[in-house]
Amino acid sequence: MINKRKFIAVIGGSRCSSQEAKLAEEVGRELARHGVALVCGGLGGVMEAVCKGCQSEGGLTIGILPGDNRQTANPYVQIPIVTGIGYARNIAVVKSAQAVIAVGGSYGTLSEIAHASQGGIPVIGLNTWSLARNDQPDNSIIPAQSPAEAVDIALSLATD
Amino acid sequence: MINKRKFIAVIGGSRCSSQEAKLAEEVGRELARHGVALVCGGLGGVMEAVCKGCQSEGGLTIGILPGDNRQTANPYVQIPIVTGIGYARNIAVVKSAQAVIAVGGSYGTLSEIAHASQGGIPVIGLNTWSLARNDQPDNSIIPAQSPAEAVDIALSLATD
Amino acid sequence: MINKRKFIAVIGGSRCSSQEAKLAEEVGRELARHGVALVCGGLGGVMEAVCKGCQSEGGLTIGILPGDNRQTANPYVQIPIVTGIGYARNIAVVKSAQAVIAVGGSYGTLSEIAHASQGGIPVIGLNTWSLARNDQPDNSIIPAQSPAEAVDIALSLATD
Amino acid sequence: MINKRKFIAVIGGSRCSSQEAKLAEEVGRELARHGVALVCGGLGGVMEAVCKGCQSEGGLTIGILPGDNRQTANPYVQIPIVTGIGYARNIAVVKSAQAVIAVGGSYGTLSEIAHASQGGIPVIGLNTWSLARNDQPDNSIIPAQSPAEAVDIALSLATD
Repeated sequence: MINKRKFIAVIGGSRCSSQEAKLAEEVGRELARHGVALVCGGLGGVMEAVCKGCQSEGGLTIGILPGDNRQTANPYVQIPIVTGIGYARNIAVVKSAQAVIAVGGSYGTLSEIAHASQGGIPVIGLNTWSLARNDQPDNSIIPAQSPAEAVDIALSLATD
Repeated sequence: MINKRKFIAVIGGSRCSSQEAKLAEEVGRELARHGVALVCGGLGGVMEAVCKGCQSEGGLTIGILPGDNRQTANPYVQIPIVTGIGYARNIAVVKSAQAVIAVGGSYGTLSEIAHASQGGIPVIGLNTWSLARNDQPDNSIIPAQSPAEAVDIALSLATD
Repeated sequence: MINKRKFIAVIGGSRCSSQEAKLAEEVGRELARHGVALVCGGLGGVMEAVCKGCQSEGGLTIGILPGDNRQTANPYVQIPIVTGIGYARNIAVVKSAQAVIAVGGSYGTLSEIAHASQGGIPVIGLNTWSLARNDQPDNSIIPAQSPAEAVDIALSLATD
Repeated sequence: MINKRKFIAVIGGSRCSSQEAKLAEEVGRELARHGVALVCGGLGGVMEAVCKGCQSEGGLTIGILPGDNRQTANPYVQIPIVTGIGYARNIAVVKSAQAVIAVGGSYGTLSEIAHASQGGIPVIGLNTWSLARNDQPDNSIIPAQSPAEAVDIALSLATD
């Protein structure tokens, strides 16, 4: 591909705490400052906060929606993708990205972490899940201490 | 949504005749001249020709891919969406658009025409399928005589 | 596979005329008499009628549902498959079968005919769509005059 | 639904240790002894072992396959469902069940645990993942000490 733009997904709950929203919005601003396109699930909560931050710095926001209607996208989504496949769109969210940043999140977010790890796509975490398998820690989620660090790690690993 | 950009899908075979490629490329140029974002399946044939035309006039090209790998996108796709769901991505191609233009095409294209019509999304046809149900003609595919006419009709119907 | 059971899909509208329901119910009875497993979309209309007929003769009925809830299956579905992927389940309905019988139907049925033909799965039609491409008739839907004939043709072609 | 049969999914890797295969096979036998229908992903490893055990006791085995071809099913699958949607079929595996038993497993299995928990479907674990969120243990996976105990817990929770 001629296209050299990087695509990074940000995942998290459609409802979130105000602290998670602040983290997500700052992640969005950082992505825009680095010229990265944002991919997300297109709805509220963390998805809306990260789109808001990204758009405020002139970034490109892509929302991959579960339902049949573009009107369900949050107001900061510039490219709504309408899939009609419900939670199966979680797979498209992470597979469309070269790295994934998780902010908080519940079981939907966990499914996205799992699908990304299954596909060899790096996952960086901010206050999110941690995993162990057969009582051994699994290190597939790389912890970050701040939005800026999360974006730095994501960019360094987004090699496709 | 704040977003007022229109999204129009162009569908057709991943292999096509040179005449179909010419039609598709001109449809792509027309879409770009009208400031419309192009949605397609992201692969070769009609999809590549329409992306090439659209990009040549500075338009935005979105390719919704069936497989697991962004490298399968044609070189004119600017926004590759990697779904991993095979032919089920046909549904996302048409549902992400406010109108659909079909150029030639085989059974995959027919499935997209059907999914669009099922969802109430207008379909404009250039040298493509025609349908009858119980021996009565079905007029859900609006015939156009040229790429410019196809885009004009699509825009007039793309009201969401 | 050890399994030698044949699987045939019956497709058609979730609402249908009483004549279509009669045809579908008789198709279901014929399938059961031949020891064939029935695959369908699991909802009402043609799907319910064919399941009713099949079950009345002791046949096996499989319903591949679009939503998230097995309770949406019609009462004659013995094996409900809950996909949560909406209309993308249409693809699973036809791909799970070795031949497809269409009874009437609207655009959802047309999408199933298209997905089956794309995958090389034979389609037999009772009072359903007919197709032409670039003004040439397309013969991918094999017309049958009765439920018994439809099942006979389907079985003769269900070789996988 | 008239249907009172219970459906329980068993998930785990397409490659597995001999110990995991032994556990899975015994889970399959237990399910069959209780008259429960088995749902799984239809491929090898844990999926094949559990189907083998279930069939050996006369149980019903359903395999929901990711690809386009029923020939990819393991030889103990009686009802192959061919989805063509890749890993998105993981969602159908768990949503088609009233409870899920995880035996070992990698990221694909983790995605299924997540999708089940998101949908409120109980998950019972044998030597599988454990989860924590924001450093707090998450108890959505109920640990079992043996195949018999896993099946007992699953049946007690499979109320739909």
